[in-house]
Amino acid sequence: MSSEKLVYLFSEGNASMKELLGGKGANLAEMKSMGLPVPPGFSITTAACMEYFRNNGELSSELQEEVKEKIKVLESETGRKFGDPKRPLLVSVRSGAVISMPGMMDTILNLGLNSDTVEGFAAETGDRRFALDCYRRFIQMFGEVVLHIEYYDFEEIIQKEKKNSGAETDADLSEASLENVVEMFLNKVKEKTGRDFPQDPWEQLDMAICAVFDSWNTPRAKVYREANRISENLGTAVNVQAMVFGNMGDDSGTGVAFTRNPSTGENRIYGEYLLNAQGEDVVAGIRTPQPLEKLKEELPETYQQFLDVSRKLETHYRDMQDIEFTIERGKLYLLQTRTGKRTAPAAVKVAVDMVENGIISKEEALLRVTPEQIEQLLHRQIDPAAELEILSKGLPASPGAASGQVAFDADTAENWSREGKKVLLVRQETTPDDIHGIIASEGILTSRGGMTSHAAVVARGMGKPCVCGCEELEIDERSHSLSINGVYLNEGDKLSIDGATGRVIQGDVPMVDPVIDKDFQAILKWADEVRQLSIRANADTPEDARKAVEWGARGIGLCRTEHMFFDSDRLPVVQEMILSGSKEERGGYLKQLLPMQQQDFKDIFKEMIGYPVTIRLLDPPLHEFLPDREELLQELARLRETGNREELHRKEMLWQKVKTLYEMNPMLGHRGCRLGLTFPEIYQMQVRAALQAAAELIEEGVEKDKILLEIMVPLVGHVNELKEMRSKMEETAGEVLKEKGMEIPYTIGTMIELPRSCVTADEIVQEADFFSFGTNDLTQTTFGFSRDDAEAKFLPFYLQNKIITENPFMEIDREGVGELVKLACQRSRQVKDDVKLGVCGEHGGDPRSIEFFQHVGLDYVSCSPYRVPVARLSAAQAALRS
Amino acid sequence: MSSEKLVYLFSEGNASMKELLGGKGANLAEMKSMGLPVPPGFSITTAACMEYFRNNGELSSELQEEVKEKIKVLESETGRKFGDPKRPLLVSVRSGAVISMPGMMDTILNLGLNSDTVEGFAAETGDRRFALDCYRRFIQMFGEVVLHIEYYDFEEIIQKEKKNSGAETDADLSEASLENVVEMFLNKVKEKTGRDFPQDPWEQLDMAICAVFDSWNTPRAKVYREANRISENLGTAVNVQAMVFGNMGDDSGTGVAFTRNPSTGENRIYGEYLLNAQGEDVVAGIRTPQPLEKLKEELPETYQQFLDVSRKLETHYRDMQDIEFTIERGKLYLLQTRTGKRTAPAAVKVAVDMVENGIISKEEALLRVTPEQIEQLLHRQIDPAAELEILSKGLPASPGAASGQVAFDADTAENWSREGKKVLLVRQETTPDDIHGIIASEGILTSRGGMTSHAAVVARGMGKPCVCGCEELEIDERSHSLSINGVYLNEGDKLSIDGATGRVIQGDVPMVDPVIDKDFQAILKWADEVRQLSIRANADTPEDARKAVEWGARGIGLCRTEHMFFDSDRLPVVQEMILSGSKEERGGYLKQLLPMQQQDFKDIFKEMIGYPVTIRLLDPPLHEFLPDREELLQELARLRETGNREELHRKEMLWQKVKTLYEMNPMLGHRGCRLGLTFPEIYQMQVRAALQAAAELIEEGVEKDKILLEIMVPLVGHVNELKEMRSKMEETAGEVLKEKGMEIPYTIGTMIELPRSCVTADEIVQEADFFSFGTNDLTQTTFGFSRDDAEAKFLPFYLQNKIITENPFMEIDREGVGELVKLACQRSRQVKDDVKLGVCGEHGGDPRSIEFFQHVGLDYVSCSPYRVPVARLSAAQAALRS
Repeated sequence: MSSEKLVYLFSEGNASMKELLGGKGANLAEMKSMGLPVPPGFSITTAACMEYFRNNGELSSELQEEVKEKIKVLESETGRKFGDPKRPLLVSVRSGAVISMPGMMDTILNLGLNSDTVEGFAAETGDRRFALDCYRRFIQMFGEVVLHIEYYDFEEIIQKEKKNSGAETDADLSEASLENVVEMFLNKVKEKTGRDFPQDPWEQLDMAICAVFDSWNTPRAKVYREANRISENLGTAVNVQAMVFGNMGDDSGTGVAFTRNPSTGENRIYGEYLLNAQGEDVVAGIRTPQPLEKLKEELPETYQQFLDVSRKLETHYRDMQDIEFTIERGKLYLLQTRTGKRTAPAAVKVAVDMVENGIISKEEALLRVTPEQIEQLLHRQIDPAAELEILSKGLPASPGAASGQVAFDADTAENWSREGKKVLLVRQETTPDDIHGIIASEGILTSRGGMTSHAAVVARGMGKPCVCGCEELEIDERSHSLSINGVYLNEGDKLSIDGATGRVIQGDVPMVDPVIDKDFQAILKWADEVRQLSIRANADTPEDARKAVEWGARGIGLCRTEHMFFDSDRLPVVQEMILSGSKEERGGYLKQLLPMQQQDFKDIFKEMIGYPVTIRLLDPPLHEFLPDREELLQELARLRETGNREELHRKEMLWQKVKTLYEMNPMLGHRGCRLGLTFPEIYQMQVRAALQAAAELIEEGVEKDKILLEIMVPLVGHVNELKEMRSKMEETAGEVLKEKGMEIPYTIGTMIELPRSCVTADEIVQEADFFSFGTNDLTQTTFGFSRDDAEAKFLPFYLQNKIITENPFMEIDREGVGELVKLACQRSRQVKDDVKLGVCGEHGGDPRSIEFFQHVGLDYVSCSPYRVPVARLSAAQAALRS
Repeated sequence: MSSEKLVYLFSEGNASMKELLGGKGANLAEMKSMGLPVPPGFSITTAACMEYFRNNGELSSELQEEVKEKIKVLESETGRKFGDPKRPLLVSVRSGAVISMPGMMDTILNLGLNSDTVEGFAAETGDRRFALDCYRRFIQMFGEVVLHIEYYDFEEIIQKEKKNSGAETDADLSEASLENVVEMFLNKVKEKTGRDFPQDPWEQLDMAICAVFDSWNTPRAKVYREANRISENLGTAVNVQAMVFGNMGDDSGTGVAFTRNPSTGENRIYGEYLLNAQGEDVVAGIRTPQPLEKLKEELPETYQQFLDVSRKLETHYRDMQDIEFTIERGKLYLLQTRTGKRTAPAAVKVAVDMVENGIISKEEALLRVTPEQIEQLLHRQIDPAAELEILSKGLPASPGAASGQVAFDADTAENWSREGKKVLLVRQETTPDDIHGIIASEGILTSRGGMTSHAAVVARGMGKPCVCGCEELEIDERSHSLSINGVYLNEGDKLSIDGATGRVIQGDVPMVDPVIDKDFQAILKWADEVRQLSIRANADTPEDARKAVEWGARGIGLCRTEHMFFDSDRLPVVQEMILSGSKEERGGYLKQLLPMQQQDFKDIFKEMIGYPVTIRLLDPPLHEFLPDREELLQELARLRETGNREELHRKEMLWQKVKTLYEMNPMLGHRGCRLGLTFPEIYQMQVRAALQAAAELIEEGVEKDKILLEIMVPLVGHVNELKEMRSKMEETAGEVLKEKGMEIPYTIGTMIELPRSCVTADEIVQEADFFSFGTNDLTQTTFGFSRDDAEAKFLPFYLQNKIITENPFMEIDREGVGELVKLACQRSRQVKDDVKLGVCGEHGGDPRSIEFFQHVGLDYVSCSPYRVPVARLSAAQAALRS
């Protein structure tokens, strides 16, 4: 039993009460207080919803009492009465969660109609056909949403009646036909539920409220919340509002509009409407609506009124709005306003425009663009130079290009995606039940529905490419095939879409790198002004280094030297080096590798003049450079057959070495500094190469202080490892510098990628100038997960069953791995407060991980070059939020 | 420059000053203060030694000054003068480290002799031959120890002189011969060093002191310290003492004795002596000495005096003493006393006897026996029923039996041991240079030397079996072979010894379990009274469980259920279970396994009535139960040849499964609770089996509170894993209990074997009744070491190069792994202060690790059954020390 107020009239609330009233209710209240035309109504709070769940799905008598009082207020404001056979009060019942979840919750219109009130309503409106249509819609919606009767059970009746009466569309159904339909609907309800359709409006209302509450827990709502990280404990509010009718003839209508273009961000109102229709007709995408501009011709006054209202709303909310409206006999009513979802380019453009217009500050602008949107902007696009086989064109519903294998249903899409296939989901139209398939797909293509259809809205929200309403697309669900303009494709065939243009293209398409436009540049520049973390990139080649700098990296945080060893002209030398029987022999091959590695380093340093370059010494176990065990075994069998003795001998020696180097768990084996310690000559060659490369550049005129060389020892777990390596490397460096007669500054540090190195960071730091957290390996060892095995074997199961909520290789596990990182930061800084701390694992480019790294006080993050802009923005947001 | 006193007369010190005066010096001072006959002398402190090292190996003038003063005191006490040609003061210079290191440091006797004083000494003693013999010994010792001239250079001269003069032994050399020898020795010194033998006694003394200091840093001393965990920073004292002579004729002699038998612990004096000899002759084992009892006949008065002194010393020191003495013309002098090293059985017997005689307390007794000695007592012995081919018999120098491949030198022994071979080191006699070979060997066999020879003393100290003085053994070092009584063996052949009886046995011998005698029982009983940690055993079979209880375990801390799966009649069913295509099919095979597993548990519970049994659910990855990948591949190739289609089909299916289950890093793969979560039916079967087994026993009349079932989930890293498993297991348990209509208490806990579970122990503990630290896997993940790979690839290198000082799989790594264990204890107890905490990794049986576990507050340790007594004592010692 609660003593709080459970129901608020719109006139009692405001926009700040979202948590209690839900987004929709709070905004309706706010609009009411702004004096905008909102039909009267009230919100049942989210607290009431959670109480209802605690109450095992029963409405408390307190709640029922409060609802009754508020209905009284509606009655007095509208001059109608709930259940009155003459002037019945009709209401809509809609969900309103705290965070907007488009299309996920259920709505009931025209509640209050029954076989009595429908006649009073008919008399009042003077349109019995209209009243009957409202009634049959109500029965249908209530039947589906509250009584869980299938859509098809009702649709079948309508189709039959249309056929019998020769009507082509629903609108052609006569009053008599609708009377039949209502009759049959009521019978169907009795047949399916075993009881009469509830005629008491109060009972209807109670049942509808329960249904809205219950819809919080539908699987589709849960999937959405999961995908969007929305807490299960928020609950939903219920909004009960006096009905207005967009289907009262051609001076009525309903529509949705954005105050700016949600796709491009252009500062121009953008929307769609349908005359003589109820709201659900637009959102559901069943009839293709008109662009808003057309309203100017059809109802110019109302159009102007809407323009004024939308400008007022945007100014008031200081952000682009997404507005639902209804026109009843020429009069405009607002049914909802909310922050408009937008594509990545639109997000950037709107934010920058609003800063330039003085509406918001730069800081606000930075928080308005999500790192995910930045990532989308960095998605590769279809190569403009490519010759494309364009099959058709639909609506450009969500930008970006996608290629994949055609799947016709969400389950197939999901299954294929798990198997690692890239999938393009192709549907007539999507429904909330398809959510898991949309999540799993590269992009969505539909044959029906407009720019605000379910598919379009959801895809834009997720940043997935989407093409909607491609009418030339015909899907044959039975044979799992499609045809477009005479081209037939089967399930599994490749197809591409371009969500920015609406093009549908046969087969795979070549992609190109994205461009960074001026708005994008502006946001990133502001991000750089705000952020505290430095941004570096992981780069192993001069090309990557160049790209990294272009995208705003100011240093290389991880240069993996082994990648150079895998080069095809070097691998044979590397293999000979490994096969060497003695240190001397090995030294010979290392001498061959030295100039190559030196050139590698020189080329990279050249790109990074003035920026630090962290060179990680050889990390993988040596057997990674040798041929695959099983292939070799088969080759040996073959050679024994064919009898090529010389080759056989070579391969047998190779096999011996492969066997000797074989490891049970190479991830935990003879690699990193363990290799460096047992074969010091390898690291010495690498250190020599790096310093000689630096020396060469200095000889060529580069200032020596502009080469910022950081030598990084991988996989240190014990201070003595680093101590020993450091002394060996300093010895080699000393030799080179002496030979060159130069002083080249360099620092020596280590990766922190083992739990032991975190725990003993206070010891290790005594030998280190810097630490770079290798959070990939640290995650593997902390969890005891081999990433390859885990992601193939049990991690999907874990994620699906919520044993862990995020893949810890994508987003840092704060409680476990993060705790060790924090410990290492604290312990090392206690001993050496100026030790440079960074991260070079994949997490360095993950927004939520970056927030954590800001929190624990790292100096820099390093990520793949293509994620550098994401990291720049994320770092800025982290700084703003901290 | 130091202002502290650097030199102490014996009369200025006492036994408590060991750190400063070294063990030998402090005990000489103590004996002096007890009024015992100790020749006058003084100790140069260990502080002076460390200052000498800091001073780059130079004696400070302060030190030289102090030494001079003390020599003056010696001169006045003896009525002699240092360097006086008439009545020269002769001194011994001996090292005296803080912790006794037998044979490791060098000694010089008769210092002060030169070509002048030797004549005065001759005149004084009236025995010029004796004086010359002393002089040549001095030159030889000084030459070897101070001037680093080879032993053979001097020995060659003596051999030549013996041959020329027809002398059989050294003692047969005439005065004239000795004069020749001295002459030739002096020439040899000049030849080897390029300068004359120092004639100035002060120079001799300075050089000798330096040599003793320097000997602290010889490789052999370092090896000993490393093996015995003695700090490098202690330094050694130097004892300078007026000479007494055991070689002044047949009323003179020298010997060593233990106040009790160091081999058996029997309370009877035990020693050896040689008449007319200097001290080194006994210790070096070159002449075979007489048992002490014989002295009763030869010098009855002196014998009685010695008995009195030795009783006095033991009572004074409250422990068995190891005494060096010299008899000069019938007068007894004590040159050293120290705590006697003893075998494991002797340690136990002496400790228990002394408690029974009221000399020491039980707590002291517990601290007098080392866990390593307990371990030795548990070594397997030669099966008394075995038919042995006894080749010969030597002295039973250190008990225990050993079998191994014969190696004739320390280097070979060490190399072979690294290769994993068991080695028996066979030498004529050992010297300190053989230390590393002794450490590496299973046992030692020598053809010369007595019970107090180097080999015997060192072997006893290390608890290695040793047989000495086996005179029938002839070693041919050139051909690397030996013969005993006509049997010829080559290097690498197998040979066994029984150190308790002195038997030398051909080939390998069958071994049996040790017995626990009454003294041993007493010590363990006292340990149980004192210790706070409970002791459990890791046991997977009823046999192991029984053994564990016999040896004092009071519970099973780890029962590995997978070991039951490997049983040959079960493996096929397990394989079919793994190959099952569906949950249903798998369920069928699990049903077959259920009664087997149930019987396993029942048999174990029966042995453990009243004691807790921790059942660990299946841990290894499923592929461990399938055939080896490569073998299967080869079999497939064979089957394709022979064309057995049915078999081929089966193997191909198997191959598919093996391929599917293959993991890159199985240690970090799909195992433990990851398996339990993805295939819950396996764990459910195991839980059912356990509860049904308990139910059966209860039905058979066992009280239900006497079955203490603890179900343990392996490899939990996240609380949700345990939460999910717990609910599944409780469901199954509930079913069984309902079926049986019984209440059977059980608890559910988890292993803590991942860094993440340590860090998040506060969360995990909310779902756990107990934690058991799996420190094997925790060490693997914390270090990022795969044990198999590390121990084969780089760990030996790490240990050898001191990158880490202990194998972390043997002794817990306190700084890293231990820190995580500590963290987990703190965090879990903060949330649930009564959570039961234990350890079941191999460290549970390691003394130093147990000390750590006591320190962090665990409730119990669990180890292999055969280590239970070691754990009992270690836990008691840990409690006493904490």
